[in-house]
Amino acid sequence: MSAEQPTAAERPAATVLGLGAMGTALAAALLDQGYRVTVWNRTAAKAAPLVERGAHAAATPEEAVAASPLVVACVLDYDALYAVLDPGAAGLAGKTLVNLTSGSPEQAEEAVAWAEGHGLDYLDGAIMTTPEGVGSAERMVLFSGARAVFDAHRPALAAFGDPLYLGADPGLASLHDAGLLGLMWATMAGWLHGAALVGSEKIPAESFTPIAIRWMATVTEIMTGYASQVDAGRYPGDDATVDVQIAAIDHLLHAAAARGVDNSLPELLKATMRRAAAAGHGPDSLASLVEVMRKPQPPA
Amino acid sequence: MSAEQPTAAERPAATVLGLGAMGTALAAALLDQGYRVTVWNRTAAKAAPLVERGAHAAATPEEAVAASPLVVACVLDYDALYAVLDPGAAGLAGKTLVNLTSGSPEQAEEAVAWAEGHGLDYLDGAIMTTPEGVGSAERMVLFSGARAVFDAHRPALAAFGDPLYLGADPGLASLHDAGLLGLMWATMAGWLHGAALVGSEKIPAESFTPIAIRWMATVTEIMTGYASQVDAGRYPGDDATVDVQIAAIDHLLHAAAARGVDNSLPELLKATMRRAAAAGHGPDSLASLVEVMRKPQPPA
Ligand SMILES: NC(=O)c1ccc[n+]([C@@H]2O[C@H](COP(=O)([O-])OP(=O)(O)OC[C@H]3O[C@@H](n4cnc5c(N)ncnc54)[C@H](OP(=O)(O)O)[C@@H]3O)[C@@H](O)[C@H]2O)c1
Ligand SMILES: NC(=O)c1ccc[n+]([C@@H]2O[C@H](COP(=O)([O-])OP(=O)(O)OC[C@H]3O[C@@H](n4cnc5c(N)ncnc54)[C@H](OP(=O)(O)O)[C@@H]3O)[C@@H](O)[C@H]2O)c1
Repeated sequence: MSAEQPTAAERPAATVLGLGAMGTALAAALLDQGYRVTVWNRTAAKAAPLVERGAHAAATPEEAVAASPLVVACVLDYDALYAVLDPGAAGLAGKTLVNLTSGSPEQAEEAVAWAEGHGLDYLDGAIMTTPEGVGSAERMVLFSGARAVFDAHRPALAAFGDPLYLGADPGLASLHDAGLLGLMWATMAGWLHGAALVGSEKIPAESFTPIAIRWMATVTEIMTGYASQVDAGRYPGDDATVDVQIAAIDHLLHAAAARGVDNSLPELLKATMRRAAAAGHGPDSLASLVEVMRKPQPPA
Repeated sequence: MSAEQPTAAERPAATVLGLGAMGTALAAALLDQGYRVTVWNRTAAKAAPLVERGAHAAATPEEAVAASPLVVACVLDYDALYAVLDPGAAGLAGKTLVNLTSGSPEQAEEAVAWAEGHGLDYLDGAIMTTPEGVGSAERMVLFSGARAVFDAHRPALAAFGDPLYLGADPGLASLHDAGLLGLMWATMAGWLHGAALVGSEKIPAESFTPIAIRWMATVTEIMTGYASQVDAGRYPGDDATVDVQIAAIDHLLHAAAARGVDNSLPELLKATMRRAAAAGHGPDSLASLVEVMRKPQPPA
């Protein structure tokens, strides 16, 4: 506990419901920041390491909710969330529920209606890190919904990472979460395809990866430039055009095919580029692919 | 010119063949470093801005080659390269050719044989930036082939960016180029899909992109950890398993479909995850997808 922490008598209280990998990390982060932490988990044994560190383990969700004005929930999914909260929902009236369970924007909106029905304040969130990253100010935790709720509980939310408020629409945290995870999966798949490609020539992934990560700095710089193109809906191909990328991707397809590396991902990327070119974006920048993404492809 | 530059009499000489967007940037970078630069381009008019800056424009490739011990070539493709060099190939004997034209690893190997036949030193390279990035020490330029040639010409190569020597196999620069471009296309596609998704709720790409770029720092940290898993061929799913990612990607598919955003990319990513799970990698980390990539998918 740092010198700026409140004295024991002043310590704010928070409850954490759900002690999976992520809920445990959240409760530990609150303990690290000097909170009086009450925890509950369906499988009670998972509370033991937190109790050793000073948390109080409640016997029921109702008892856990009663212990603190702020309740943080992080369970598997929304079905689990309502299974935990519905039986004692009356006890939530006047409390604040911060829900860090992953779900869709629509589920976040339903939760707001549910919370209004039970007289509690609600904030939706998404944690953009693994449990090990929780507590680092470099890691983002996204929030959306009532701004006043975010502002009132910002110190507690900052225990989990860098809290980013995205807007009043409660679905925005989940929407960004989905978009960012999609970016992660695409990036990981592209990197693993490259690792398979160079690995076929006995280059270890541990040699390729630092080069790939340096390259990502160039890629993110290009992204920054393209973001304004996306917003303007105009994609000047000053640096490299879709037509040029279509020519270049054949080198990748050829090199990978010659080495027995699966080409499903680059084939799809090339098909997407060709759809953009067919829509007139051949002389435009790669940012013009967003036009293709905005239109669902008719079934083949 | 900085204080460390040689005097005019000592200035090293270099020739650049091909003055497209990239060749022009390469010649300009050599001028910036104080080289005596001779240039040639099929369309002669493109030399004018460089001549204004002090370059000498040769009338033929042969004349340009004769002017300098070091010849840098950057034309559209290998067909263009041989079209430029073959007529006066005898004049290249004893010179060094650094070829920065994009191509496949196989084309780089053929070029080495061609160079041996004509008695010249050859180095293959790949520029990992756009023309605007040429000259920045933050941008990588990849080289492969004879180490002695790389070492002898390192100062000139450093004019273009940070020169990285990848190994004696001349195809390695092109192979890495292909892998890194594949990573770029996948990342760009993932980012544009996310931009289309949040854009459907009126979030500008210029708001989403800084968040996406911060997120990439988390993603590259995960990559670093996974690189050793790829090399070891063991993929402990301590942080998040393929099974968990398959469940999570449904949130993205659902959110995108509900907003009329094309799901070709996340569908392919999910199919790849499912192939990994079917191969027994459900409880493993996402790094296990490399196993799937190493095996071409049978035609559907
Ligand atoms: N792990 C990550 O890297 C990560 C990152 C960002 C977001 N998240 C999100 O965080 C949430 C929790 O993830 P996690 O990693 O902590 O998962 P986990 O380790 O599998 O834990 C799941 C939690 O949900 C509880 N639960 C499941 N079904 C329940 C039910 N019907 N009733 C009551 N409790 C139930 C579990 O209780 P028991 O212990 O009794 O089974 C456990 O506390 C998920 O929405 C996940 O998407 C995770
Ligand atoms: N631009 C980039 O961001 C970038 C990045 C990395 C690598 N590269 C690679 O750099 C190389 C050049 O790209 P660039 O951007 O400079 O392209 P560019 O602007 O289109 O220039 C093409 C160059 O090739 C010459 N050329 C084409 N066909 C020829 C032929 N049959 N005979 C003689 N010369 C011929 C052109 O001469 P004319 O002027 O007479 O047409 C011009 O000098 C390509 O291999 C590209 O993949 C480019």
